[in-house]
Amino acid sequence: MNGLSERIRIVLVGTTHPGNIGSAARAMKVMGLGRLYLVAPEAPFPSSRATALATSGDDVLQEAVVVDTLLDAIEGCGLVLGTSARQRSLPLPLLDPRAAAARGVAEAPSHDVALVFGREKSGLNNEETRLCHYLVNIPTSEEYHSLNLAQAVQVLAYELHLALRADTPGEIEPPDWRPEPPERLEIYFERLAATLQAIGFLNPNQPKRLMQRLRRLYLRARPDENELNILNGILSATQSAARGRTERNGD
Amino acid sequence: MNGLSERIRIVLVGTTHPGNIGSAARAMKVMGLGRLYLVAPEAPFPSSRATALATSGDDVLQEAVVVDTLLDAIEGCGLVLGTSARQRSLPLPLLDPRAAAARGVAEAPSHDVALVFGREKSGLNNEETRLCHYLVNIPTSEEYHSLNLAQAVQVLAYELHLALRADTPGEIEPPDWRPEPPERLEIYFERLAATLQAIGFLNPNQPKRLMQRLRRLYLRARPDENELNILNGILSATQSAARGRTERNGD
Repeated sequence: MNGLSERIRIVLVGTTHPGNIGSAARAMKVMGLGRLYLVAPEAPFPSSRATALATSGDDVLQEAVVVDTLLDAIEGCGLVLGTSARQRSLPLPLLDPRAAAARGVAEAPSHDVALVFGREKSGLNNEETRLCHYLVNIPTSEEYHSLNLAQAVQVLAYELHLALRADTPGEIEPPDWRPEPPERLEIYFERLAATLQAIGFLNPNQPKRLMQRLRRLYLRARPDENELNILNGILSATQSAARGRTERNGD
Repeated sequence: MNGLSERIRIVLVGTTHPGNIGSAARAMKVMGLGRLYLVAPEAPFPSSRATALATSGDDVLQEAVVVDTLLDAIEGCGLVLGTSARQRSLPLPLLDPRAAAARGVAEAPSHDVALVFGREKSGLNNEETRLCHYLVNIPTSEEYHSLNLAQAVQVLAYELHLALRADTPGEIEPPDWRPEPPERLEIYFERLAATLQAIGFLNPNQPKRLMQRLRRLYLRARPDENELNILNGILSATQSAARGRTERNGD
């Protein structure tokens, strides 16, 4: 691994087959990637099957981090790319593997980057997809889309390897901008929902669609610490204002 | 398969593991390639293991052509690309997977093209290598080179698929997202500043720095019409809440 590749996490969510974990580790190792996260694997882990298929990638398996939720796996990441075979009801920006790798490597000097792979059968659920800044779609035949999980990891690892070798930044972000990690943004979204209810803007019975749209907006913006402080400050001031009204209404 | 992809043969030489034949067939199928040649496979063929791993690529297996020698497999081909993990004593021109795919697709209108993969352990022998016009080398980590056969087929099949599709944009924005024009965003910023003053968050004497930061955040997000309507709706609700407090204060 070189320095940049250490900023890149490969995250497998709910993997069912131990062989896929092993093959993914091998694909990573061959392409110079080392940081593997397993979110609530369905497969037993560690397992002899995974180790056998990892071959020389067994050190990747040994250093793999097992966590309970996707949010744990992407903690501290400034960019979260979720692979997806299908388009969602509320679409996110979509990258092909090459553009995803270019973006990941371009941002890796600033912050950790996560590349997330869903379950073999069902992919990422809506809850998990909501944590992603971009979706990554591997182009396939129109006739048959189903890429095996390890093959999908291989394609992305290969593109990341090429992008890491090339080190040509196509886009340079402002130096003072460091996107806040997902865990802080999630707290903001909860406060935002509560505040919108307090000012009577969010219908507590049907909060979902509106919050989905606001999530997409702020995930696209990727606020940094300063900006998130401002946004939280606005919520606090808004809640004070709402309390004022509530108290008055109760007069 | 489209017309061009029918001119491209994937040739596996002396494959040992039936699972690799199946996974290769699946990788081909997903990437819209259908013509598989097996040269003197060591693995039993057909086999249930290969069929299981091919999943929907089993038609590729059923139509696979089994031959005795590489020369039989590449009969009639105008271009033969041999994958190789190492450089030979008498070097051939070397292509990376992208250049190999570009060349293969460029020549496919004129003649059949073969992409040849050697044995799992020992690759192509000298006799076989001599039949190749180019060698194809998949870039890997310097530390660990050994790509699994099916993974190597996957990488090349993916590059061939991209080259066959060509002209596909690397990033696709959600179809329902059309950033609002600046003039509408400017109106929002004015309302935002007024609202933040109303809830006591913005110091009217020094509004600039804060509004600059908020501008940068929302310019980065580029809200669309729907999102801007939501943001404006939140401002309206917030102003109502603030009026509530103001009126109460004036009670």
